[in-house]
Amino acid sequence: MEQSPTSHLKLLALPLFQGITQQELHQLAAHARFHFQKLNSGITFIKEGEACKDLFFLLQGRVEITTSSANHSFMVKEWLETPSVIQPERLLGLSPWFPSTYTTQENSSILSIDKESILSFIEHSFIFRINFMNILSTRIQKMERQQWRPISDSLREKIIRFFEQHVYNIGGKKIFFIKMITLAKEMNVKRIKVSNVLNELQSEHLLKLERGRIIIPALEKLIQKAQI
Amino acid sequence: MEQSPTSHLKLLALPLFQGITQQELHQLAAHARFHFQKLNSGITFIKEGEACKDLFFLLQGRVEITTSSANHSFMVKEWLETPSVIQPERLLGLSPWFPSTYTTQENSSILSIDKESILSFIEHSFIFRINFMNILSTRIQKMERQQWRPISDSLREKIIRFFEQHVYNIGGKKIFFIKMITLAKEMNVKRIKVSNVLNELQSEHLLKLERGRIIIPALEKLIQKAQI
Repeated sequence: MEQSPTSHLKLLALPLFQGITQQELHQLAAHARFHFQKLNSGITFIKEGEACKDLFFLLQGRVEITTSSANHSFMVKEWLETPSVIQPERLLGLSPWFPSTYTTQENSSILSIDKESILSFIEHSFIFRINFMNILSTRIQKMERQQWRPISDSLREKIIRFFEQHVYNIGGKKIFFIKMITLAKEMNVKRIKVSNVLNELQSEHLLKLERGRIIIPALEKLIQKAQI
Repeated sequence: MEQSPTSHLKLLALPLFQGITQQELHQLAAHARFHFQKLNSGITFIKEGEACKDLFFLLQGRVEITTSSANHSFMVKEWLETPSVIQPERLLGLSPWFPSTYTTQENSSILSIDKESILSFIEHSFIFRINFMNILSTRIQKMERQQWRPISDSLREKIIRFFEQHVYNIGGKKIFFIKMITLAKEMNVKRIKVSNVLNELQSEHLLKLERGRIIIPALEKLIQKAQI
């Protein structure tokens, strides 16, 4: 049973809990509100725009993340590995709401811990505090590095960078629901040029083109191949 | 004298210390290592790539920030208001070093507080802890929002967004050391098109073109004007 008293020990496999002992986790958990949910496949448990009042952890199963561009001209789907934590950078700050929709893809176990309990972990555990702040700081540092990378002349690299900039995690399968004409507009080139590059990448088995969508089986391989 | 026992009270004007009382600051400071420096104009006190072992605060004076693109194809200068804190998101994380160079522009007072003391503030002050994590979270949220904004058709907006994406603070004067041909390459258009837009913005007094550089007196006005 996922609701068993030991299921939360899966948290220890997460970077957020790295270095925390089983004993320390028990101590932290004693004063915290843990809420376990068993969800069937196809259940949306977080909607884009919803307030982030809890930290959600996927302990078992599979979850799909859907994110749309601000004007809904394109949409991206990716999937959460288990165990995972969902967007710890949305618990605080000026925009404490979820920018994506989260839906189970199989029967899944979700643990949620309310904001107050997380703040208490941060207060009482040195390791948790450092882990949490490291995760936030690293995310900023990666985004800043991305912003300061100059644009390449190669359309191939530009398209791959577009993919890279519109996912939450680099690793794994991604589906971009985007028309070639929209992608061409983002790249500021003619549609035929985007089409040529995408077909080239398809012939290298790095992605698959379907009507209105681009399926990337492993984004990290695509990035590695382009050496960006 | 800046080294006076009360000069650190200027910290209370910073978002990082918002809500902290004078009394609480005294308590925190009692166990912290505060290092005050009076620097003449023209002194570089942080170099790009240097390890971030302290949090630096500008208490008095004026400081220039210089940041270069990864391949040094362009460079940006901006200036710090007083009081300011310098890049709290670089104290931790995977890349704890400064991405920019900081040089005094007049006689300045700089306070530095070592990482250990900052971690102790985070541990002992609820307000400081929340402020610090709010600042990191908000920065991520803003960058994410920027990434998901679709590209506009207008080259004018694209150029302004390029400026916006390559500064640390939106407000105030910025100088971009960039050749028109480099900017044209970033925009993926012909040099003449970039030149036309920049001259248009110059005629609206939103920027000034000089050889190899673009001077923007107030970036926030330029952004507001473009309504992006």
